[in-house]
Amino acid sequence: MTENQTIDQIAAAASAAARPFARTTPRERAAALVAVADALDAAGGELIPIAMRETGLAEARLTGELRRTSWQLRLFADTIVDGGYLDARIDLADPEYVIGPRPDVRRMLEPVGPVLNFAASNFPFAFSVAGGDTAAALAAGCPVVVKAHSGHPELSRRTAAVVIEALRSAGMPEGVFQSIAGQENGVALLKDERIRAGAFTGSTHVGRMLADIAASRPVPIPFFGELGSVNPVYATYADAALLDGFVASVSGSAGQLCTKPGFLFVPADADLSPVAGAASAVTEHRLLNPGIGRAFSQRRSDVLGADGVTVLCEGETRADGDGQVLATPTVVAVDVDTLLADREALLEESFGPLSVIVRYTDRGALPGLHAELFPGNLTSTVHARADELADGSLAGLVEALAETSGRVLFGGWPTGVSVTPAMQHGGPYPATTSDGTSVGTAAITRFLRGVAYQDAPQELLPAPLRDDNPWGVPQRVSEPGGSQSWGASAR
Amino acid sequence: MTENQTIDQIAAAASAAARPFARTTPRERAAALVAVADALDAAGGELIPIAMRETGLAEARLTGELRRTSWQLRLFADTIVDGGYLDARIDLADPEYVIGPRPDVRRMLEPVGPVLNFAASNFPFAFSVAGGDTAAALAAGCPVVVKAHSGHPELSRRTAAVVIEALRSAGMPEGVFQSIAGQENGVALLKDERIRAGAFTGSTHVGRMLADIAASRPVPIPFFGELGSVNPVYATYADAALLDGFVASVSGSAGQLCTKPGFLFVPADADLSPVAGAASAVTEHRLLNPGIGRAFSQRRSDVLGADGVTVLCEGETRADGDGQVLATPTVVAVDVDTLLADREALLEESFGPLSVIVRYTDRGALPGLHAELFPGNLTSTVHARADELADGSLAGLVEALAETSGRVLFGGWPTGVSVTPAMQHGGPYPATTSDGTSVGTAAITRFLRGVAYQDAPQELLPAPLRDDNPWGVPQRVSEPGGSQSWGASAR
Repeated sequence: MTENQTIDQIAAAASAAARPFARTTPRERAAALVAVADALDAAGGELIPIAMRETGLAEARLTGELRRTSWQLRLFADTIVDGGYLDARIDLADPEYVIGPRPDVRRMLEPVGPVLNFAASNFPFAFSVAGGDTAAALAAGCPVVVKAHSGHPELSRRTAAVVIEALRSAGMPEGVFQSIAGQENGVALLKDERIRAGAFTGSTHVGRMLADIAASRPVPIPFFGELGSVNPVYATYADAALLDGFVASVSGSAGQLCTKPGFLFVPADADLSPVAGAASAVTEHRLLNPGIGRAFSQRRSDVLGADGVTVLCEGETRADGDGQVLATPTVVAVDVDTLLADREALLEESFGPLSVIVRYTDRGALPGLHAELFPGNLTSTVHARADELADGSLAGLVEALAETSGRVLFGGWPTGVSVTPAMQHGGPYPATTSDGTSVGTAAITRFLRGVAYQDAPQELLPAPLRDDNPWGVPQRVSEPGGSQSWGASAR
Repeated sequence: MTENQTIDQIAAAASAAARPFARTTPRERAAALVAVADALDAAGGELIPIAMRETGLAEARLTGELRRTSWQLRLFADTIVDGGYLDARIDLADPEYVIGPRPDVRRMLEPVGPVLNFAASNFPFAFSVAGGDTAAALAAGCPVVVKAHSGHPELSRRTAAVVIEALRSAGMPEGVFQSIAGQENGVALLKDERIRAGAFTGSTHVGRMLADIAASRPVPIPFFGELGSVNPVYATYADAALLDGFVASVSGSAGQLCTKPGFLFVPADADLSPVAGAASAVTEHRLLNPGIGRAFSQRRSDVLGADGVTVLCEGETRADGDGQVLATPTVVAVDVDTLLADREALLEESFGPLSVIVRYTDRGALPGLHAELFPGNLTSTVHARADELADGSLAGLVEALAETSGRVLFGGWPTGVSVTPAMQHGGPYPATTSDGTSVGTAAITRFLRGVAYQDAPQELLPAPLRDDNPWGVPQRVSEPGGSQSWGASAR
């Protein structure tokens, strides 16, 4: 968004780009995604110092995040290039069909149109301007408008410029990618009828407000929000190695990760003394912005002040001269009854380096406790010894976790989400507002809709549905009489 | 719902059934769906007379509809039995993955939980108690509560009894299927936190009200509403055969079909004289219920009273002694300017045997006209001569139709939707509230959500994700290094 552009012009440009972009082939879009990835990789030397200054995140973390961001774009290029994501289905006409003569019906997934993507503060690359939602929507063939996060404005502008130039040089239509700034502008655009879907990563409060706007438009649109998660971890034992791993997961990126473990359940007799040493070894880290810093300081005070809390590592927060907050990790312990008694202070997500260890005495009560306290999370994790994993005694807990989580982990930590075909990063509300995923290649389906063509002449069918299959996409063909077959060649 | 059951008890029973039902294998659920289909087929002799009395629909239509209903159940059984719908994905661990060591990640689709399905008035079998939404949700492994339509209460009760008995004898858990009556009960249950998704077929007014309730819950849920559609048809010519087909499509089931063509665009010089003869040959038909009859009578008056309308066949409506309304077809003609000038009277859906023929002079203006007037429909249709279809001149129109419709037809009529793997019965709002389909096998995805398991021991993985693949489902495996393969045998 330049200073002279209005929201109306942004919407008009996105809308104008929708049809020419939808007409591009998956191979052309894949090449464009790779061009963006290459351009981002090449721009790292310029972008990473800006990101460090604007977010306070460390160079190593940001370097890895930029690699992940370009990888996401390449993975979506790989995902679309063979056309399998189109789910092309061809039902050949069948005069003897049991419910009456069947016409020739062919269906594929087509882009929904312009997508508005609200960027996150905590991943200035991977969930921001050129992040996963942008990659998925572009891969689907949808123009994208990113509402940049106010926490990294210069990085957002520079990244947008890199994306726009790369898409232009790859021959993509003008207007296929744009960025805007300002919450008011974002809300105005979300209400614009030319925007056909929204995506968001951020707080439960803001995410729900935007989801409500999307749902209450004269023409409602799907809104894929990733809001909040406390990512409980259930351990049947707690030794020093496990507690070290826990502290590292809680304090990495100063705990400002949507998959940070907010609760670790351990047997009541576990020795938690290693926590203090591990946590006090973590150096002070600046939080992303003054607002997050203030909110974290308040949450930390509430948790430390709750009745029945044992402080394992107090940590600290302090403001620097610019209003930025610096923090070291805080870890407390409670028993189950304390947690149940003061849910208001203890259960809410603490976005920053703070976690609560919960001592339990009855392992058999964990599935019910989990279902009651944690109805919707991105992740849940189990740490158990090999014999316990093998003997079936944890099946009930795992079932409860799967019912309430997008991802269930065993023996690891939920932070450091990998980007793979099978990844799921979306769980029951409030983890997400819908049942999609914003990480992994399944994310593309959020921006596609089915369209069927009945008795269409070959000349008027989209290429993926034609008998001669010019793009060589996988086609699922239902023959007259009922048999189905898969193929990716001309029929 | 028996007289002694409360909404709370209904929700509790559905919730209690969710886990045991989710544990059933696709083969077990497929067998149960076939048992329901068999039971419905066997009960036709009892059910069809009740349906005739309660809905006024003809025996032949209802017999065909019941066959379609049992076929839908069988088709979903076929869809789930091989487990392909689970979209099982296995990413094997890859220590050399480009963005850092990749864990073993496995993802499949799992049922969302109890589904509340609001039945339609106009398909007392196929979109009602045992209809498409019920079949899709049961196939997905979700308990179903149907809110029966008040237009066919006895049929709903009898059908529900048949479904419950068939599911019970197939060994499915108690509570997996229930029915309730009354709009207030439906709204109360839609607000219950134990309900995890809603489905609806009916009017735009009621559908939007329910969609808003679903979106504004403390925990919002997906709501799949099929609301309203006027299904425009664009013809480059109009001969007697075409006009006969049009009248048959408009008047079948007294026009009370969501895919009824509400508008037929024809060249201004077309001879429309065959319409009157075809329409006046249609015998009087009772509308579904007094409310629909009154609404149709009002819509018909509004259309007949609009300025610039030419009456081709006036038809009539009359009330019988029970308040039921009987109707014969009404067809009017307007020119494009008249339609544009009085959108309020002319553009709204007329649920009943009424359609508007629109005379156009500029074929090149049709794509723009369509985009302006019809932003969301279940279907759009093209009638053109073979040479026109082949010469590419209609490509722009077809593109405009595909952008705004769930299904684009060529040379046929949108009523009489077939139920097939490639069918799409859902289009942009207000045709539907979301981008799903309620007809065809893709309907099952509405009631599923992704769950990933990371580094899980084999013993704790769901069967479809295990190396030994005991159900023999298709698994998409990503090997270390990047290659992918598909298979349905043990790894």
